[in-house]
Amino acid sequence: MCRWLAYSGSPIRLEELLVKRDRSLIDQSLHSRQGATTTNGDGFGVGWYDDGETPRVYRSTHPAWNDRNLRELAAGVSSRLFFAHIRASTGTAIQETNTHPFRSGRWLWMHNGLIREFPKLRRELALAVDDSLFASIEGTTDSETMFYLALTFGLESDPVSAVERMVGLVEETGRKHGVEQPIQMTIATTDGSTVWAFRYSSEGDSRTLYFSTRMEALKALYPESDELAGLSDETRVVVSEPLGDLPGAWNEVPESHVGIIQPGADELQPFTPQR
Amino acid sequence: MCRWLAYSGSPIRLEELLVKRDRSLIDQSLHSRQGATTTNGDGFGVGWYDDGETPRVYRSTHPAWNDRNLRELAAGVSSRLFFAHIRASTGTAIQETNTHPFRSGRWLWMHNGLIREFPKLRRELALAVDDSLFASIEGTTDSETMFYLALTFGLESDPVSAVERMVGLVEETGRKHGVEQPIQMTIATTDGSTVWAFRYSSEGDSRTLYFSTRMEALKALYPESDELAGLSDETRVVVSEPLGDLPGAWNEVPESHVGIIQPGADELQPFTPQR
Amino acid sequence: MCRWLAYSGSPIRLEELLVKRDRSLIDQSLHSRQGATTTNGDGFGVGWYDDGETPRVYRSTHPAWNDRNLRELAAGVSSRLFFAHIRASTGTAIQETNTHPFRSGRWLWMHNGLIREFPKLRRELALAVDDSLFASIEGTTDSETMFYLALTFGLESDPVSAVERMVGLVEETGRKHGVEQPIQMTIATTDGSTVWAFRYSSEGDSRTLYFSTRMEALKALYPESDELAGLSDETRVVVSEPLGDLPGAWNEVPESHVGIIQPGADELQPFTPQR
Amino acid sequence: MCRWLAYSGSPIRLEELLVKRDRSLIDQSLHSRQGATTTNGDGFGVGWYDDGETPRVYRSTHPAWNDRNLRELAAGVSSRLFFAHIRASTGTAIQETNTHPFRSGRWLWMHNGLIREFPKLRRELALAVDDSLFASIEGTTDSETMFYLALTFGLESDPVSAVERMVGLVEETGRKHGVEQPIQMTIATTDGSTVWAFRYSSEGDSRTLYFSTRMEALKALYPESDELAGLSDETRVVVSEPLGDLPGAWNEVPESHVGIIQPGADELQPFTPQR
Repeated sequence: MCRWLAYSGSPIRLEELLVKRDRSLIDQSLHSRQGATTTNGDGFGVGWYDDGETPRVYRSTHPAWNDRNLRELAAGVSSRLFFAHIRASTGTAIQETNTHPFRSGRWLWMHNGLIREFPKLRRELALAVDDSLFASIEGTTDSETMFYLALTFGLESDPVSAVERMVGLVEETGRKHGVEQPIQMTIATTDGSTVWAFRYSSEGDSRTLYFSTRMEALKALYPESDELAGLSDETRVVVSEPLGDLPGAWNEVPESHVGIIQPGADELQPFTPQR
Repeated sequence: MCRWLAYSGSPIRLEELLVKRDRSLIDQSLHSRQGATTTNGDGFGVGWYDDGETPRVYRSTHPAWNDRNLRELAAGVSSRLFFAHIRASTGTAIQETNTHPFRSGRWLWMHNGLIREFPKLRRELALAVDDSLFASIEGTTDSETMFYLALTFGLESDPVSAVERMVGLVEETGRKHGVEQPIQMTIATTDGSTVWAFRYSSEGDSRTLYFSTRMEALKALYPESDELAGLSDETRVVVSEPLGDLPGAWNEVPESHVGIIQPGADELQPFTPQR
Repeated sequence: MCRWLAYSGSPIRLEELLVKRDRSLIDQSLHSRQGATTTNGDGFGVGWYDDGETPRVYRSTHPAWNDRNLRELAAGVSSRLFFAHIRASTGTAIQETNTHPFRSGRWLWMHNGLIREFPKLRRELALAVDDSLFASIEGTTDSETMFYLALTFGLESDPVSAVERMVGLVEETGRKHGVEQPIQMTIATTDGSTVWAFRYSSEGDSRTLYFSTRMEALKALYPESDELAGLSDETRVVVSEPLGDLPGAWNEVPESHVGIIQPGADELQPFTPQR
Repeated sequence: MCRWLAYSGSPIRLEELLVKRDRSLIDQSLHSRQGATTTNGDGFGVGWYDDGETPRVYRSTHPAWNDRNLRELAAGVSSRLFFAHIRASTGTAIQETNTHPFRSGRWLWMHNGLIREFPKLRRELALAVDDSLFASIEGTTDSETMFYLALTFGLESDPVSAVERMVGLVEETGRKHGVEQPIQMTIATTDGSTVWAFRYSSEGDSRTLYFSTRMEALKALYPESDELAGLSDETRVVVSEPLGDLPGAWNEVPESHVGIIQPGADELQPFTPQR
């Protein structure tokens, strides 16, 4: 079971949320409390936006906690929007092309969960990927296949509908092959300005997903951070497991919902797989 | 352009052919003479048979010349049949699952060359892989796709015919997409007792492939090697580029041929793609 | 805190003790029960003897649990005497030259524990290493420095005395610099026939160390293993944490003692640092 | 033999000089023309200054030409002062702590060349490093030892004199041990504002070192680069081998000299080892 974090708001150094705190994402990779897997040492990735349209991606197969380059990067890079992901493989190979976030054009995508019995479904799902996108698949994970299916179904024009269709296809394909609960997921995706965060599972018992809805709560969590003190009211963090233990700082996204972080009011909508 | 070596005969330590000599495979990876690429530093792999049916495989993304574990392994492992491959990527990612030799059951497979414009053909070729084999594809290379196509076409029962059908399909698919000369290859494959070595290219101008046909020549090449002195008369080496400069030691495999190393007399047959 | 295992006896495949069991060393690297560190993901190493005098060493900075080459090696290599070590760094860099076991000539050495405030003591300890040995130091760990000090003090002729002198020097040097409890260690070393296993700490509260004293107990632990069934009565395993939960299978080495595994009767002696 | 590049001037993206051009540093790592080694595939490093005092360092043991993270970083990071180095090992281990540039506080250091018979001299040179600095040595290269000796001799207050004393010590120590020509070097070091570039060898036949003295020449070399068009007149590049073939763009630093890039007029001074 993986761990991920999405940040959107005033530019901060990546290390503020990835490295520095007792309950940072890297700390979580060593000691997860709510995760199904005890250790997340099968690689990690960071994707961030700077002044260009295309995000930068740094991915490695080393455990995050002992990668010096990650610490240098996290100290040296500031960003207004970044994704970070720490992987615990559910069986596929430990290689950079299997680490999140995945990138296509200006989009990023990361996932926690799995398609159950993916080896059995992989070929049929791969065939549903659009011809023009197929050659860009570089790895062998269920997560990357889900990304390319969502792109096939129009992620770039209507993200919620595209992910609903992707999940619909996975569930239909899975059940055709006798898989009762085909999908388990929390997913984050972004085009560089809006962030969509999905929580869904076929069995209606999804892995956790949290929004930091109140900026004042986050600031209370890091009172000594001058950098955080200057964050805009629009600043939001979405995580698979809360950072820190401050009561009231985090709101759990309900089952079968998608949260949308955007300029102006954020949104929370029901999520329904489609065929 | 890659480099490879196949050995069959009296058990020897891998280091005898991989590490020790001035013109060993590792030395070739630093300074290739006949290759199209100046450096082969994009990973390597070794596959060998011990007393079991399933070969062992050691693959790494480090350059072969600075991998200490390879030297330890090559010094510690003796084998009667082994493959070694040094990679120069033609574009796909540098990761273990893209390094040769590839393995399926008791079979090994390695390749030097390429399918031209593979990204354009990849999806259609992948779809031709048998459903039961598809989920075992771990990497993204043309070489691994060729292996799974050959397995689909019956590699395990009639290897020559299976490879002829695989090449026929690649050429047909390529030409359908406007690729004039779709394939360039030297390939070695084995089931643990017989070795098949193919040389073919659509343009009739294939990369080099050599057999050491005379054991006495090989022994003359390594006069100081006590280990080689005791090699059986059936011992053979197949290489993409000759080891050493001894005149008469190596015989080039002709264009569009397959050589078969087996108990008893070896064979050389014409190779003709089939549809 | 690291984990290690030393095996001496009838030749077995490394995977029997490293990979296969629920409580194998690799499993321990993910979920340690008695260790001070929750995860041992900072690299690993294996050293084994074949028919030559010099042991082979395979070391990697990947977490042991996701290194495919380790699994291949452990399945392909049999040995009558091998060491395996899984590292949790106490601060020094994650690199192959800092992973155990360390090798010098036909000797292997591995360590669990630490020299406290090693950065403060490092220079003075390094200067005590014999001139002829100094250039062979490749890494930066306390463990490797301890090995070279022991070699300096005659490890090859009188191992127990050499380690007692090494510990005496570390304690003297530490206390001179104000370190109250300078050393904490369990150490295994071998010349390829005898194995010495030390348990000692300045504070008299050392990390655990266990011998499998009764072969019948080990066989009872792995009843389904045909390979273990054929093990000689001299076969012994020494571990930092017991493999499996079988009552009676493991005997704890007492504080400040060294166990010696050798042809004929094994020995257990008091261990006293010397100056 | 290594390759390196130092850039000082108007902020540019690292990729402009590391990745983009036919004769970029990465291209040189594959095909060096003036180097003694044919391939530089034993790791690389980049050090750069952003708005803080401490430089950031990214170092890897992968060949530079196939490291995707380097390409991302070089595209995402702009800097007014950066060092880049591509390594060809002269014998020491391939590990991050042996790759350049080395960092201490706000200083960076990189080196092309070697101390001859370094294993013989290593201990005596290491003992000359100041006690307070010794514990910061992380690797095993001659280059890093030279850095810590220069720091010991006052690099931070008088860099030219400190390097002259370091070279004096190396030559004296070498000759005492029967090494006739102990040192061969081009070195760059910086405190984040001034860059010192040294060219020296005991035999008076040093490896090459070039300054781009005229900004208009550099702009002529990259006419299509809008980013270069806006570079300040103070912008300078120092390289071990010229980038590109434009006549007149590069000036060779003479034997036994040090060039100093600084605000205002740059300087070129004779360099004389001292004892």
